Amino acid sequence: MAQHRVVLSPDRFFDPNPEQRDMARHLYGLVAHLPIVSPHGHVDPRMFADPDYRFGSPAELFIIPDHYVFRMLYSQGIPLEKLGIPRRDGGEVERDHRKIWQIFAEHFYLFRGTPTGIWLTQELHDVFGVDVPLNGETAQVIYDHIEAKLAQPEYRPRRLFERFNIEVLCTTDMATSTLEYHKAIRESGWSGRVLPTFRPDDVIHVNAPGWKENIHLLGELSGVDVHDYGSFVRALEVRREQFKALGARATDHATLTAYTERLSEQEADRIFRRALQGEATEEDAQRFAGHMIVESARMSIEDGLVMQWHVGAFRNHNRLIYERFGPDKGADIPVATEFTRSLRPLLNAFGNDPRLTLILFTLDESTYARELAPLAGHYPALRLGPPWWFHDSLNGMRRYFDRVMETAGLYNTVGFNDDTRAFPSIPARHDVWRRASANWLAGLVVRGIITVAEGEEMVVQMAYSLAKEAYRL
Amino acid sequence: MAQHRVVLSPDRFFDPNPEQRDMARHLYGLVAHLPIVSPHGHVDPRMFADPDYRFGSPAELFIIPDHYVFRMLYSQGIPLEKLGIPRRDGGEVERDHRKIWQIFAEHFYLFRGTPTGIWLTQELHDVFGVDVPLNGETAQVIYDHIEAKLAQPEYRPRRLFERFNIEVLCTTDMATSTLEYHKAIRESGWSGRVLPTFRPDDVIHVNAPGWKENIHLLGELSGVDVHDYGSFVRALEVRREQFKALGARATDHATLTAYTERLSEQEADRIFRRALQGEATEEDAQRFAGHMIVESARMSIEDGLVMQWHVGAFRNHNRLIYERFGPDKGADIPVATEFTRSLRPLLNAFGNDPRLTLILFTLDESTYARELAPLAGHYPALRLGPPWWFHDSLNGMRRYFDRVMETAGLYNTVGFNDDTRAFPSIPARHDVWRRASANWLAGLVVRGIITVAEGEEMVVQMAYSLAKEAYRL
Amino acid sequence: MAQHRVVLSPDRFFDPNPEQRDMARHLYGLVAHLPIVSPHGHVDPRMFADPDYRFGSPAELFIIPDHYVFRMLYSQGIPLEKLGIPRRDGGEVERDHRKIWQIFAEHFYLFRGTPTGIWLTQELHDVFGVDVPLNGETAQVIYDHIEAKLAQPEYRPRRLFERFNIEVLCTTDMATSTLEYHKAIRESGWSGRVLPTFRPDDVIHVNAPGWKENIHLLGELSGVDVHDYGSFVRALEVRREQFKALGARATDHATLTAYTERLSEQEADRIFRRALQGEATEEDAQRFAGHMIVESARMSIEDGLVMQWHVGAFRNHNRLIYERFGPDKGADIPVATEFTRSLRPLLNAFGNDPRLTLILFTLDESTYARELAPLAGHYPALRLGPPWWFHDSLNGMRRYFDRVMETAGLYNTVGFNDDTRAFPSIPARHDVWRRASANWLAGLVVRGIITVAEGEEMVVQMAYSLAKEAYRL
Repeated sequence: MAQHRVVLSPDRFFDPNPEQRDMARHLYGLVAHLPIVSPHGHVDPRMFADPDYRFGSPAELFIIPDHYVFRMLYSQGIPLEKLGIPRRDGGEVERDHRKIWQIFAEHFYLFRGTPTGIWLTQELHDVFGVDVPLNGETAQVIYDHIEAKLAQPEYRPRRLFERFNIEVLCTTDMATSTLEYHKAIRESGWSGRVLPTFRPDDVIHVNAPGWKENIHLLGELSGVDVHDYGSFVRALEVRREQFKALGARATDHATLTAYTERLSEQEADRIFRRALQGEATEEDAQRFAGHMIVESARMSIEDGLVMQWHVGAFRNHNRLIYERFGPDKGADIPVATEFTRSLRPLLNAFGNDPRLTLILFTLDESTYARELAPLAGHYPALRLGPPWWFHDSLNGMRRYFDRVMETAGLYNTVGFNDDTRAFPSIPARHDVWRRASANWLAGLVVRGIITVAEGEEMVVQMAYSLAKEAYRL
Repeated sequence: MAQHRVVLSPDRFFDPNPEQRDMARHLYGLVAHLPIVSPHGHVDPRMFADPDYRFGSPAELFIIPDHYVFRMLYSQGIPLEKLGIPRRDGGEVERDHRKIWQIFAEHFYLFRGTPTGIWLTQELHDVFGVDVPLNGETAQVIYDHIEAKLAQPEYRPRRLFERFNIEVLCTTDMATSTLEYHKAIRESGWSGRVLPTFRPDDVIHVNAPGWKENIHLLGELSGVDVHDYGSFVRALEVRREQFKALGARATDHATLTAYTERLSEQEADRIFRRALQGEATEEDAQRFAGHMIVESARMSIEDGLVMQWHVGAFRNHNRLIYERFGPDKGADIPVATEFTRSLRPLLNAFGNDPRLTLILFTLDESTYARELAPLAGHYPALRLGPPWWFHDSLNGMRRYFDRVMETAGLYNTVGFNDDTRAFPSIPARHDVWRRASANWLAGLVVRGIITVAEGEEMVVQMAYSLAKEAYRL
Repeated sequence: MAQHRVVLSPDRFFDPNPEQRDMARHLYGLVAHLPIVSPHGHVDPRMFADPDYRFGSPAELFIIPDHYVFRMLYSQGIPLEKLGIPRRDGGEVERDHRKIWQIFAEHFYLFRGTPTGIWLTQELHDVFGVDVPLNGETAQVIYDHIEAKLAQPEYRPRRLFERFNIEVLCTTDMATSTLEYHKAIRESGWSGRVLPTFRPDDVIHVNAPGWKENIHLLGELSGVDVHDYGSFVRALEVRREQFKALGARATDHATLTAYTERLSEQEADRIFRRALQGEATEEDAQRFAGHMIVESARMSIEDGLVMQWHVGAFRNHNRLIYERFGPDKGADIPVATEFTRSLRPLLNAFGNDPRLTLILFTLDESTYARELAPLAGHYPALRLGPPWWFHDSLNGMRRYFDRVMETAGLYNTVGFNDDTRAFPSIPARHDVWRRASANWLAGLVVRGIITVAEGEEMVVQMAYSLAKEAYRL
């Protein structure tokens, strides 16, 4: 390969002050090689079910499935069709993956200073041994290089899992998932620990497309005849047990707002029956979803599943893109979120119960210091998830440390989630967190706020043990 | 005492850059030993009324009355009963203060990197001479040590007041306070300057529990028969004069929102009469409170009392804790706050009058640069209070300096408030502010934004004179 | 001149870390002398129409027209009358400009650490050669000095335009502007490039004072008989062509909220007719304005004018000041702004069309990372304008870089706007941006996030080419 070599500085992302940089390097050194605990993400379990599973082309690995990548290209006027994103109507899209890769490489400069740019650079370098910068000139030779690597057995997902030193990886699975791949992983005898997570969004939002079909599926998979609210709850409880039997440690919930409400059994039943008859209103749907969050907390107290809640993404903002390409195409946009009043019904019901662990994620950073840190610094059941999605970045982490830690305290947070569907990017993502954590703690040490010994303990907790403990892994 | 010694770096909290650190040290040196002006806080005046007043046990001094401390322990699942917090129903709580102290010490690591941790460490070190870290092993020997100190005459409140070099300390006193301790302080001939502050929240919120009793008390204390809006206003005016006679310089107001409205005399009277008959609606209560804020500004213009307003705390968020333990138990949570539209009626009525000084406090930092700094940078009557409560921290101060000063200018701010009920923590709190101020100004100097001479003037203003002037002390 | 000399550090505003400072100096050196591209501002074109145009007194140049300056003096209790601000009723105001200047100089300390202080200091130093600090003692000698300079031909606007190395300057002109000065500039044969910008706020807000007169003017100037919605749209299209003929590259829109809605032709016509009859409701006005934003995007796609939109200023907050002195008197206050839901109708209509360039400006920084960066990082039509108004400051820029760039990417931003009516402050304003940009990029380089070569390319884009390309200049 030609061009100047990519060199990843061993001190990258650390403060340039020599005193802080030295301390950051020291602290980072304590965690750089710790196993990866990945308690929340979207990796497809299928890739571990079959020991011979192969990633596709470089474009299929890096571009086509990754909305972090193609949204940026799209924002600069490149049609998704040219990037090979499949259309719902089966319409023509680019099929020459070398051409797709060429466009990507020519526009790789768009990712300068972005977390996606950082992850991709590190992934190309560390996982694939690419040591020239990606651009229009190097595009094809890098394509060749990656293609050759992907053909090797060392690049099968299970081998990478081991090479990445992943101790445990949790996927996200709908309530209507058959969990077939998780079963296959278990039955295969492979030692890798890949666990499902129970996400009941598909059966909780009574006005979402396909809800009724999902309710039928839920009935089939649970073996419970779901015909009213009571049987719906029983079916959920059965499914949670089925997930637990395959190692699940947590549930996951996603909503636009943090609205919660505790309905009476009768009210919940009335809404559920209206929904079955296709007569639920928008208000019904919102109240039912708010109630089911509270009800899920009740179940968690009983069955011990940790509860995760991701709030505030307005999904499918771009109608044209949604209609042509479907969901998860880079058009989910955050909205301002209210927690203090919204969570009160939930927290008054179960927030004082230390058997519950509710981990909250927000896309509205203005709530960090104003609402979430004070709430987590009081309620025993509440913990704060790491900076999420757009905020999973160096600046996002810095803002999170600055605004959350003084009030919530480190011990009401839960370490890191990579939250990714891009499996080979996992080491890079955890590395950014570990470097950012080390640098933040180094800043506290050199300012006389914590001692070196405290920093040494805290960096291990941030990189490894807080996540493991919070998720009961 | 065993273990490694606690050393407080003389340069703590300063930037690690040598140039900025040197300048910060220089500027801090100019104010480190200035007298403390404490224009707003919640210290109980009782402790100064009796020259022989003694603090109780270490647990009674550090833990039981301080919701900053026990909320963090509670958030990690430690019941408040185990911390000796008294229950409303008189139910059993831990009475062995050594056990309470032991729990606190074992969990002191929870405060790493928090302002409470910083204050406690400095307070233990500087006020009580504790030079080993507080943890499970050192708990009892530190308890012994503090207990012995507290038995000494040097640890009576008046002696500490003098040792702390407090020039003036303002307390916060309800409109229905008899002010007996303030009278006793005056009559005792002691030279310490402890002044009351008039806080009429107990008579302004017509739907709050106990409002009617408070109105009766107000009538008794003012000697005005309060039977309608007109007599209510007269009673308030009398009480303000009574507070002034004991040295009061300011009033204080606390509300959930910044809503203001100017009612006609007739409307105000109608609401007041409905309230006396127990028939005021929620809307009545909100409108009346919004009106009384405007009316208080009118009174301030006439009698010269500076007006403080603390906006945005959702009180008693946790019903169970409120019912079992009462208010001020660490369960007050901020909410998003709107100022621009809400303050308009007030500011259009009195904001152009330079005789009024209205000092605003917010828990919603997103309003600093967006609303409060532009408002304070325009209206002659408006000043911004320092970062409040959860934001009274190193990062909170940094964010405040960054977001407020460029638009409002330093001279529309009022220096520091410690806002504490923990009397022995006052020097530590002011020290954090002085260090943070010096460090911020040093950053401006080394970036060529202000000159050294300007920094030298400004640091004294921030540490001392702005507060003194704004509160007319 | 006496007193100690003002020295502007060549490294001012850079981080004090030597490694970062050296890199910042290097990057700044690449752009310090590039021509100024000023694509949005409020300079009066009149000053370039007449080659002999002279600025008035120092007070007329620096104080009387600049609400950034007098609002701060007003906030400290100095009546606007004393600063010579003309009253609407023709009432008495200070006419002795030396007295006005004296007050300003005595209070110049109020601007310490503010962007206005930075610009004024640099402007006095670089443009007028003032090398002593401005204060009460130096006031009159500096006045003499500036007055003498202003009498020289070198201080005519055209000469300063050339000296400032301005490549292009865009003004802001209402839809009802005759554009006479722009025509005069063109006809004068002067080589300076001064272009109009089409701002139709005066004809779009149907309930604003004077709207009907403006509609008549619009009819006259366009030669279209405006009697219904269809003819209104035609008149706008004609005027846009007239602006384009004089070089306009863009339109500009200002609203309180980001509300958009697409009305049917019939609905729009019904509202327009009601408005002509003076019967439009507040709701009509809001819906019509929201519709006209969408319609303006449609026009931009057709005629190629770039669209600018400034959202979130509550105008004329202070009624007394507005009634006595009129608009633009330092009493415009930002409000919290919602973009995600509000922009959806507009973006779903035209956001996917790369022929449209819509540049958004906000006064609510909490929307940077939460809403605007994700939107701009997806929609091809959307770009983000630089930090605006109160946020056009060193900290404002830092916050913008930190919160926008990781998600939107640099290439969805558009460089700098000075947005000023204070013509001689333009070089200082661009210099602050260039220094802040260089320092930010230097921070990325020394942290190993971008390479030196990337930083060198990006600093030129930020200082010069992004603006030129986005505005098609």
